Amino acid sequence: MSKRALTVTRQDNFPEWYQAVVREADMAETSPVRGCMIIKPWGWGVWERIQAELDQRIKDTGHENCYFPLFIPMSFIAKEAEHVEGFAKEMAVVTHHRLKNEGGKLVLDPDAKLDEPLIVRPTSETIIGDAFQRWIKSYRDLPLLINQWANVVRWEMRTRLFLRTAEFLWQEGHTAHADQADAMAETRKMLEVYREFSESVLAMPVIAGEKPANERFPGADNTFSIEAMMQDGKALQAGTSHYLGTHFAEAQNIQFQNAQGQLTLCHTTSWGVSTRLIGGVIMTHGDDDGLRLPPKIAPRQIVIVPMLRDKPEDAELIAYCGTLENDLKAFGIRVLVDVKPTKSAEKRWSWVRRGAPVIVEIGGRDATGNNVTFMRRDRLRDGDKVVSHTKPRAAFIAEAPALLAEIQASLFAEAKARLDGNITREIKNFDELSAHFGATEGDDEAGPFKGWVLVPWSEPEGERLEAIVDRLKALKLTIRNAPLEQGKVEGSCVFTGMAATSNILIARAY
Amino acid sequence: MSKRALTVTRQDNFPEWYQAVVREADMAETSPVRGCMIIKPWGWGVWERIQAELDQRIKDTGHENCYFPLFIPMSFIAKEAEHVEGFAKEMAVVTHHRLKNEGGKLVLDPDAKLDEPLIVRPTSETIIGDAFQRWIKSYRDLPLLINQWANVVRWEMRTRLFLRTAEFLWQEGHTAHADQADAMAETRKMLEVYREFSESVLAMPVIAGEKPANERFPGADNTFSIEAMMQDGKALQAGTSHYLGTHFAEAQNIQFQNAQGQLTLCHTTSWGVSTRLIGGVIMTHGDDDGLRLPPKIAPRQIVIVPMLRDKPEDAELIAYCGTLENDLKAFGIRVLVDVKPTKSAEKRWSWVRRGAPVIVEIGGRDATGNNVTFMRRDRLRDGDKVVSHTKPRAAFIAEAPALLAEIQASLFAEAKARLDGNITREIKNFDELSAHFGATEGDDEAGPFKGWVLVPWSEPEGERLEAIVDRLKALKLTIRNAPLEQGKVEGSCVFTGMAATSNILIARAY
Repeated sequence: MSKRALTVTRQDNFPEWYQAVVREADMAETSPVRGCMIIKPWGWGVWERIQAELDQRIKDTGHENCYFPLFIPMSFIAKEAEHVEGFAKEMAVVTHHRLKNEGGKLVLDPDAKLDEPLIVRPTSETIIGDAFQRWIKSYRDLPLLINQWANVVRWEMRTRLFLRTAEFLWQEGHTAHADQADAMAETRKMLEVYREFSESVLAMPVIAGEKPANERFPGADNTFSIEAMMQDGKALQAGTSHYLGTHFAEAQNIQFQNAQGQLTLCHTTSWGVSTRLIGGVIMTHGDDDGLRLPPKIAPRQIVIVPMLRDKPEDAELIAYCGTLENDLKAFGIRVLVDVKPTKSAEKRWSWVRRGAPVIVEIGGRDATGNNVTFMRRDRLRDGDKVVSHTKPRAAFIAEAPALLAEIQASLFAEAKARLDGNITREIKNFDELSAHFGATEGDDEAGPFKGWVLVPWSEPEGERLEAIVDRLKALKLTIRNAPLEQGKVEGSCVFTGMAATSNILIARAY
Repeated sequence: MSKRALTVTRQDNFPEWYQAVVREADMAETSPVRGCMIIKPWGWGVWERIQAELDQRIKDTGHENCYFPLFIPMSFIAKEAEHVEGFAKEMAVVTHHRLKNEGGKLVLDPDAKLDEPLIVRPTSETIIGDAFQRWIKSYRDLPLLINQWANVVRWEMRTRLFLRTAEFLWQEGHTAHADQADAMAETRKMLEVYREFSESVLAMPVIAGEKPANERFPGADNTFSIEAMMQDGKALQAGTSHYLGTHFAEAQNIQFQNAQGQLTLCHTTSWGVSTRLIGGVIMTHGDDDGLRLPPKIAPRQIVIVPMLRDKPEDAELIAYCGTLENDLKAFGIRVLVDVKPTKSAEKRWSWVRRGAPVIVEIGGRDATGNNVTFMRRDRLRDGDKVVSHTKPRAAFIAEAPALLAEIQASLFAEAKARLDGNITREIKNFDELSAHFGATEGDDEAGPFKGWVLVPWSEPEGERLEAIVDRLKALKLTIRNAPLEQGKVEGSCVFTGMAATSNILIARAY
C-alpha cells in the first residue's frame, strides 16, 4: 500500500483521482449501457439523504410533489423548438413498441412503429406546461407550485460518473405565477434554498449569482446558479433556478383569468439539482485516502468494526458492539456494525475510502475496559500517521452527536476557506487574466490550481458577448455568474474597457 | 348534488365509479402520452407513504438500494429471450439519439441511429444480472440483496389509471444466493413482508399463495403472490415474489466459487410491488362518497377546515386552527389547515372525496367554546345522514392518535370481513363452478358480486393445465393462487376428478 489509501493523489492527477474515489468508495460504476451509470448502495445512500433533506425544504416552501410521464410526444418538443432558440436536440427517441423474433433473431417489429416518436424526457417543461394549461383557470389557482423527482436523459458524448451522464436523476421544480414579481421572487427563493442546502447539508460552500446571457437556459429571461469550487480550482455548477418569463406560457397557452376577468399569460419558473451534486461532494471533500462524507449525508455516520479473531471471545466483542450500536441509534445516529468475514484492517480501510465520518474499532481491551477507540475521517492523519482516539464508552456516546456536528462544521470550514482564499480580485485587463490562468495549451483537466477570478464587467450582450465568450473559451475559461453579493463595483470591464456595472466570476469549469 | 358525493355508485357501475374516485379524489389523470399517467399531489403523497413504509421493511430485512440504468441493450433481451419461454416483447424501443430541423420541421436524424437499439426497462433482471455476474466472485459475496425504486415501461393496449399503465413506478428486489434453500427462504420472506405491509399499512387483507404453473413469471421456478379482493368481488394481484432457480444465472453466467473452490451457479429471486397498489387501495376502501384512506398512507391524516366568512372574526378562527394544528403535529400527525379561498362546504366535500381520515370543521362556536367538531371518514354517515362529533379541544387532541389507529383498524376489519365472507368452499365440480359465476356472456366489468371460490386441485401441468385455463377463460375466470394456509385438502379436483393435492382460489381478476 502507498502512503495513502488511494494509488493516485489529487496533486498528481485530479481526474484519475476522482475516478479512483468513485470506484474505491464504491459509489458508482459504468454500465454496459453507453453513458448510463449504476449507482451502488453507498452512492445511493448519499442520494437518499440528499433527497430527504432537499425534499423537506421543497415542501416547507409550499411545493407539492407530482409525477409526470417519462415520454414526451415529439410534437411538444417541436412546439418548444419554435419558441426557444438554442434548443438542444440530443435526446433518446422511442420509435417502436415491439420486438419480434425473426429467424431466431430478435428484431424491431416494423408493424409496431409509432405514429409519433416519443422523446425520453430531457427535462419536463413541455409536458408539465401542458398540464398547467389544463389545471390553471383563474388567479385563484396561482401560484401553482410543483416539483418532481425523476430520471432524465440527455445524450452526452463524453460522460463522467455523476458529473455528466446520459441518464441522471434530479428534481425539477415547475411553477406558474400571476406576474413577474411573484415568479422572480420564487426563482430567487429556490436559489436560496439551494444555497442553504448546499452549505448546511453538503458542507459545500457556493456562490449564488446570475448567469450571463450566453449561459441562460434556452427560453429563460434570467438564469441563476450556485457555483462550488472543486479542489482543482474548477467551478461546478451545482444548481440552477430560471425565471422563464412568459415564453413557455406563450408556447403552451398557459393563461389565467385575472381578478378583473381578463385572460393573462402566466409567468413561469423552473429549478433543479441532480446527482451531479454527488460529484461535487466528492471533489469538495475527498482526500488522498478517498471520500470524506459530511455526516448529514453519510448513509452510516458511525461504523463500528469489531476486531474479530475467529476465536470464542468474538461473541463478546460483537455483543459489546451491539449495545454500543443501540445506544448510538437512540440518538438518531445512523450506525453500522461491520461483521463481514474480512480482516479488520481491510474493513477499516474500506470505511476510510468510503468516507464514513467516524470509524470505531473495538478490540478486546476496549470491551473489557469499557472504552471506545475511534478515528475521525475529517482529520484522519497527523502528517502521515493515522490518528485514533480512545474514550470511555459513556463519554463517547454522550458526545457523539456533537462530534458529528463538529465534523460537519469542520468540513464546511475547510472548503469555505479554500473558496474564500482562491478568488483573485486584482485582475485589471484581459492580458492579466490570460497570464493568471497560464498558457492556453496544456490539459484543462489537470492544470495547476488557479482558483477563480472576480472581475469588473460592463454586461455586454449579443455579438460582443459572443466574442468575449470565444476569447475565454480559447483559455478554457467560462463566465460562472455575477454574484448576488456584489460588493463594490468599480473600475472598467476587463473585456470592453467600459465602466463596470457589476462583477463576474470567471473560472475553468466542469 | 346526489345523495352521495359521487355521481356514480359502486353498485351501478363499478368501473365508472373507480374512474370517478381517481378523478374526484384528485389522485391521477391521463396524460397526452398514450397509456402514461400523471400522478397528482394527493396520489403522489399516497405513493410517498407507501414507499417510506415498504422501504423501511426492505432495509430491515437486510436489502440495500441501488440504481440501474433505464435502458437495456437489445442483446441482453435477446439472450434472455433464448432462455425464457413466454418472454413478452411489447416494450418501448429507442432507436435514435438526435432530432434535427429539416425545412422547419423536427425529424429523426438518420445519422444518429443507434448501432444497437435500447429497450426502456420493462423489468431489470437482465441489467442487474449482468452486474451480479461482475460483483459476485465467492460464497463470501452471498447472499447479495439488492432493491431499486424505478419507473418501468410495458406497452399495454388497454390501460387504466394505476391498475395498468404503460409507464408505472415500482420497487424491484433482486437477490442472489448460494443454494435453493436460501433463495426459496428469501422468496417466501419477501412474500411475507408484502402480506404484512399490505394488511398493516394499506389495511388491505390478502391471501398469500403460490401461482399455478401457467401464471408463473417467465423464467421462474415458483411464483408467489398476494391477492386482494376488490369490492366488485374481483381479485387484484397486489405483489409477486419469484424463485428463479438458476435460469437467469445460466443465461448471464452468475457464478460463485463455493467454500470447496468449485464454480457454482447462483440461485436468484426477484420480487416487486407497484403503483398498482394505489388502485387496490381505492377499490378496497372507496365508497360512494369517494376515497377512504387508511391513516398510515394518508398524506394528511387530519384536515382542518376553518369555516371562514370573509369577516374580521376569520383571523381568530384561523389562529384557533393553527394552534390545533401545532398540537396535533406534536404527536407526529400529518395535519393540514385548509385556508383556500373556497366555500367551507366545498372544502368539506373535497376532503371527503379525497378520503382524509378525519375532517375537522371549526366554526365560531367551536373556537369560543374550545371545542372541535369532526367527521370520521370511515364512518361518514348514519343512513344518508352525515355524522359529525363534537369534543372538548383537549380531549380531541389527546385521543387523536388512538382515533387514527381505530380508523386504520376499522378499515381493515371491514375489508377482512368482506374477504373472509366471500370465499365459497362448497364447489364440487366444474358445472357448479360455472353456475356459481353465472353466464359466460355479460360484461366482466360490472357482473354481480360473486367473490372467489376455493376448490380442490390435483395440480395438473402442461397441456392438461392449458385446457383448464382455457375453460376458465371462457368464464372470464383465472386461477389466483394456492394459499399458503391450505387448511384441509380433501375430495377430488373440480377439473380433473383426480384426488386433490391442494386447494386453489379461482376468481375474476384485474
